[in-house]
Amino acid sequence: MNFITPYVTSIENALGSLNLPETPHTLYDPQRYMLGNGGKRIRPVLTLMACGMCGEKRRKAMPAALAVELLHNFTLMHDDIMDQAESRRGIPAVHKKWDESVAILSGDSMHTRALLVLNELDDSVDFRKINALFLTGINMVCEGQALDMEFESRDDVTISEYMAMIGGKTSALLEAALQMGGVIGDCNDTELTALKQVGKNIGHAFQIQDDWLDVVADPDKFGKRVAGDIYECKKTYLMILAFERCNKDQKKWLRDCLRNKPLGDKNVQSVIELYRDFNVIESARSKMEELYDSAEQSLEIFGETEDKRDLIKLIRTLKKRDH
Amino acid sequence: MNFITPYVTSIENALGSLNLPETPHTLYDPQRYMLGNGGKRIRPVLTLMACGMCGEKRRKAMPAALAVELLHNFTLMHDDIMDQAESRRGIPAVHKKWDESVAILSGDSMHTRALLVLNELDDSVDFRKINALFLTGINMVCEGQALDMEFESRDDVTISEYMAMIGGKTSALLEAALQMGGVIGDCNDTELTALKQVGKNIGHAFQIQDDWLDVVADPDKFGKRVAGDIYECKKTYLMILAFERCNKDQKKWLRDCLRNKPLGDKNVQSVIELYRDFNVIESARSKMEELYDSAEQSLEIFGETEDKRDLIKLIRTLKKRDH
Repeated sequence: MNFITPYVTSIENALGSLNLPETPHTLYDPQRYMLGNGGKRIRPVLTLMACGMCGEKRRKAMPAALAVELLHNFTLMHDDIMDQAESRRGIPAVHKKWDESVAILSGDSMHTRALLVLNELDDSVDFRKINALFLTGINMVCEGQALDMEFESRDDVTISEYMAMIGGKTSALLEAALQMGGVIGDCNDTELTALKQVGKNIGHAFQIQDDWLDVVADPDKFGKRVAGDIYECKKTYLMILAFERCNKDQKKWLRDCLRNKPLGDKNVQSVIELYRDFNVIESARSKMEELYDSAEQSLEIFGETEDKRDLIKLIRTLKKRDH
Repeated sequence: MNFITPYVTSIENALGSLNLPETPHTLYDPQRYMLGNGGKRIRPVLTLMACGMCGEKRRKAMPAALAVELLHNFTLMHDDIMDQAESRRGIPAVHKKWDESVAILSGDSMHTRALLVLNELDDSVDFRKINALFLTGINMVCEGQALDMEFESRDDVTISEYMAMIGGKTSALLEAALQMGGVIGDCNDTELTALKQVGKNIGHAFQIQDDWLDVVADPDKFGKRVAGDIYECKKTYLMILAFERCNKDQKKWLRDCLRNKPLGDKNVQSVIELYRDFNVIESARSKMEELYDSAEQSLEIFGETEDKRDLIKLIRTLKKRDH
């Protein structure tokens, strides 16, 4: 991923210059903790690349890139409370290291900070348009997370409902990241639509890949328990596809199975066998690859720039990830 | 409060026209529940009044007024989780009627919605300035809430720290509400500073009055347990003043007392006696009245308008409230 280093370095430098206040400690220490704890910075990189692809210097999009990264970290802080996650990127989640109130409030402050940083964009940009793209994206992330939680108590989720859910939870912020960069780079309407499509496809591909890796990943590289989603009865792309493909009796067995969370080893193995029998794992892989390819194709309308070449490399790198 | 009816009616109508989406239900039902559950709408009224006072039609400030009311309701939703409050305005708090995850996420969506509605302001306004005032205000509310939580585990809070805390928790959004209205009404810098001062003083007065009413309110009108703040060992204006005024032995007794939350009836009575001995109750009342009077005085620089007369009436009505 050498091609991505200049982007990430400039983002890390800008994050380092944010100068969050020292106090109140319970408000700002968790924000520093989250931002200092790595993360791949994919979203802000997309913002910089989109800006460059549309003809402006990447640097001009930095406030939007930072806003996207801050927003992403805020959603992680709150999601970890809702999902009762113990850790994030190998260290305790904020609500575990401090407590839930601290995680709620620091997240709220980070949400606001993202918008404050966005407000620093150059006067020459169409700020209202960028602001609307960002805020609409954020609200779609909330909608996606709400659907994901609603799915937990349902056993009739369809693939189209699943796609709508990840369209919010995973794609919406990627779409906003790319579109904001595009508007700052002074893109035209066709380019703006293409950028939305790129974000949507990368997001959908990434999430289906996550679901797929849960079953096929090499345990030594994965960093999480293989088949963890099955143990936790998650409504993944694979699980929903299995539901759609299996017969009435198998459907009844699967439904009964999922009512007793977490699943035992034996049932997890049976679910994986069901996946194999109905070609679900292979379907997920090919859907994911198809979506990454579509993302790349949507870039055809853009002229040749270093940013575009790097974005294509990024999409291909993501497509090949194995953990 | 007849004078306030036209303002509140227009705000209720505009809230009714917000048309939040129907689904996901777990995201939008709690937002409708909060907004439909009354509230005095003081903050958005202030925005409309400030706009009118500065020379534009009130209506022009409606998106900012709605943004302020949405934001306020978002903070209540999250505060109720952090404070483990059972109810809000006489009905179950969102995190009790649904659950904590729903309250976190609906609040996040309402936070974003507030900013989306603000983005609808007329093109003729200085949007970046208004946006910055609002976002800075929101972040100050977060800082105030963080300080309030930090105070819980401290017994050396000073009056000046307390004033900083309520300056965030209570005043910041009132300041923003008035200043945003002022900028939309095309105020000058002197007027903007005066509006900030009005908001600050009303907020400080209102919070000290809350602390004071906790001890002196008529139990039949109050709607909460009288002396509830003392039972809960809250660091109120009165408690901190008592700490500052009593002698070393009394201070030690008070400190030991507050370590065993909640207090028993006997200790609560002793604290109230201490308040009486050190004239704390009377000091709080006179501080509160002084702050309301200062708020009114800051309005002197504005020309005579119906909005200004109504704002003065509002300040005097607040000053006289007894529950």
